[in-house]
Amino acid sequence: MRKSLYMNILVPLDGSENSQKALLQACDLAKNHQGHLVLVYVVDKPLSLNLLDRKEYLGILRKFGNKVLIKGKEIAKNQGVDVTTIIKEGNISNEIVKLARNKKCNLIIVGSKGLGKTARFFLGSVSSKLANNSPCSILIVK
Amino acid sequence: MRKSLYMNILVPLDGSENSQKALLQACDLAKNHQGHLVLVYVVDKPLSLNLLDRKEYLGILRKFGNKVLIKGKEIAKNQGVDVTTIIKEGNISNEIVKLARNKKCNLIIVGSKGLGKTARFFLGSVSSKLANNSPCSILIVK
Repeated sequence: MRKSLYMNILVPLDGSENSQKALLQACDLAKNHQGHLVLVYVVDKPLSLNLLDRKEYLGILRKFGNKVLIKGKEIAKNQGVDVTTIIKEGNISNEIVKLARNKKCNLIIVGSKGLGKTARFFLGSVSSKLANNSPCSILIVK
Repeated sequence: MRKSLYMNILVPLDGSENSQKALLQACDLAKNHQGHLVLVYVVDKPLSLNLLDRKEYLGILRKFGNKVLIKGKEIAKNQGVDVTTIIKEGNISNEIVKLARNKKCNLIIVGSKGLGKTARFFLGSVSSKLANNSPCSILIVK
């Protein structure tokens, strides 16, 4: 192969069925190509909440994100795939792009639809924002 | 593997360097997984031209498209990859989605940037239009 697509695969998780589908595809690819997975949950920082509500909201999201990552790690481990988990806070696509750059990822695998707020992200902006700014290739899993 | 991503790969070509990069990636994947490539060039129908200019413009694009497909086929054949070429006319993303459905493709591989008009397509709308409407997964190659 000209360049291994599968050495270091970044999988943004959001707890949705679609991101789980992306994770399963990533496990398959990593397993078949001795690749490593980086699972990330990005806590999307809300702008329109007052300080107190914001703190509570972020706390809930962090807890949820950690659960999602623990479950994702378990799935990968069960398939014998080498995996790292990371939780980030900020703008979802910016954080994904930054992480892909820092971790020198070769591929980002995302579901084609996400949950709630992220649905917009995965359909509208990921595609264009990630396609524009990602340092590596992107696989959108259906 | 849960489901072979690489059995039948659709690669929209537009003559740009980026679509050639996508083609090379598709050749690698097809070669390594005994997959088949379907190369398509979509003649984008202009709406804002008068009938005569429109006819000439379409004629030029058809010629260009055929050249792009011949070159693409040669590249795939040289790598020992089984390949079909198809030229279509209409709205680029609609035609790609229809073809992916008709040919039961498992994966669409596109460059992250295209030429001229298609640049917009590959950055803005593919991503979202294909992600929304594609019957299969999409790999956006950087």
